Amino acid sequence: MNVHSKGLAPVLSSSSAAASETADARTGEILAAARQAFAEKGFDGASMQDLARAAGMSVGNFYRYFPSKAAIVQALIALDIEDMARDFEPVFASDDPIEAMRQQVRVRLVQHQCNHDGALWAEITATALRKPEIGLACGLMETTIAGYLIQAFAAATGFSLEQARTRFAAHAALMVMLVKSSAMMPQKDEQLRHDLNAMILRIIDQTLDEIAASGAKG
Amino acid sequence: MNVHSKGLAPVLSSSSAAASETADARTGEILAAARQAFAEKGFDGASMQDLARAAGMSVGNFYRYFPSKAAIVQALIALDIEDMARDFEPVFASDDPIEAMRQQVRVRLVQHQCNHDGALWAEITATALRKPEIGLACGLMETTIAGYLIQAFAAATGFSLEQARTRFAAHAALMVMLVKSSAMMPQKDEQLRHDLNAMILRIIDQTLDEIAASGAKG
Repeated sequence: MNVHSKGLAPVLSSSSAAASETADARTGEILAAARQAFAEKGFDGASMQDLARAAGMSVGNFYRYFPSKAAIVQALIALDIEDMARDFEPVFASDDPIEAMRQQVRVRLVQHQCNHDGALWAEITATALRKPEIGLACGLMETTIAGYLIQAFAAATGFSLEQARTRFAAHAALMVMLVKSSAMMPQKDEQLRHDLNAMILRIIDQTLDEIAASGAKG
Repeated sequence: MNVHSKGLAPVLSSSSAAASETADARTGEILAAARQAFAEKGFDGASMQDLARAAGMSVGNFYRYFPSKAAIVQALIALDIEDMARDFEPVFASDDPIEAMRQQVRVRLVQHQCNHDGALWAEITATALRKPEIGLACGLMETTIAGYLIQAFAAATGFSLEQARTRFAAHAALMVMLVKSSAMMPQKDEQLRHDLNAMILRIIDQTLDEIAASGAKG
C-alpha cells in the first residue's frame, strides 16, 4: 500500500483522465448492451436489473451510470443523433447536396436492415407514444434529422433556412418516415423486401427531384 | 331456490344462448379494455393483472377468457382483420375498385388518427419484432390486408389473382406501410401533419394510378 501511495497524486491525476476514458468506454458498452436488451425485451420488459446484467454490472453500479431507463433511451437517441450528424457531413460538404443525400439514403436503408435497427426504433416509437419523456427525446431526434435535411435542402436550392423550412418540412418528415418504416419492416421474403425498398427509394428520389426543381424555379 | 329450480332446464337452455351472447359481449369489453391498456402501458408493461383490472374482472375469471397476452393480441388482430374485411366490401362491389380504394384510404387515414390506433399498432409492431407468436399474428394481418388489396387490383386490372400477386405485391405492401406509418406518426403540429398526409395520399394515388395503367397495358 505504501509503495502505491507514494505515487498517489500523479497516479490519481493520470488515472483521472484514464478513469474518464474508462467511464466513456463503459458507458458505450452499457448502451450497446441496453440497445440489444430493449430490442429483445422491449422498454417495459427490460428491467434495470436486466439492463445491469446485460452490461455485466451490479445494479448499484449501473445506477451510477444511468438513473433510469428513460435516461438510457435518451442517451441512445443522442448517439443516433451523433451518427446522423456524421452522415450529413459529406452532404453539407458536397457541391450537389441532393445527389449526396440520395447516396446516403441508399447506404442507410441497407445498413439499418443489416444492423436490425428497426427493432429498437419500433420499440422507441411505441414507447414515445405513451411515455412523454421518451416522446420528447424521440421528437428531438426527428426534429434534428428533419433540421439537417432542411439545411441540406436550403443549400441545394438557394432558399434561406426559414424558406426551406416552410416549403420542405413535410418533405423532410416524409423522408424520415420512409427510412424508419423500411427499417421497421418485419422480415418479409427477400424479393418483396427488395421490391418494396426499390419503391421507397423511388419515392425518395421523386421527393428530392421535386425539391431540386422547386429551387430552380425559386 | 325451489321456485327457481323448477324451471331449471328451460332456463338453462335459454340462458345458454344468452350466456353465449353475454360471453361475446364480455369478450368485446375485455378486448376494448386491453386495446387501451396495451396502448397506455405497452405489451410488456401491462400485466394480466392490469388487463383483468382494466376489464373490471378477477384475474381468475379473466384467464377463462384469455389464457395469455399473446392470445389477446391475436384476438385484437382478428378484430382488425374483420374491420378490414368490411372496409373492402364496397371496394369489391364497386365498378371502379381503384377509385373506391382511394376513397377508403382517405377515410381510413383520418379515422386511424382520430381513434389513436397508431399507439396500439406501434406497440404490436415493436412486439412482433421480438416475440415470434405476435410476429406470426401480425404477419397474418399484413398478409390478409395485402391479399385484399391484391384481389382488388386483380379486379381492377383484369389480371388473374396470381398475376396480380406477382406484379403488385410490393405496391400492396407499400400501401399498408404508408397507412400504418401515418397512424403511428407522433402528434406533430397540425400543418405538418396535414401536409405530410397530403403527400402520403399523393403517393398512394400514384401507386394506384400505376396499377390501373399497367392493367390497361396488360
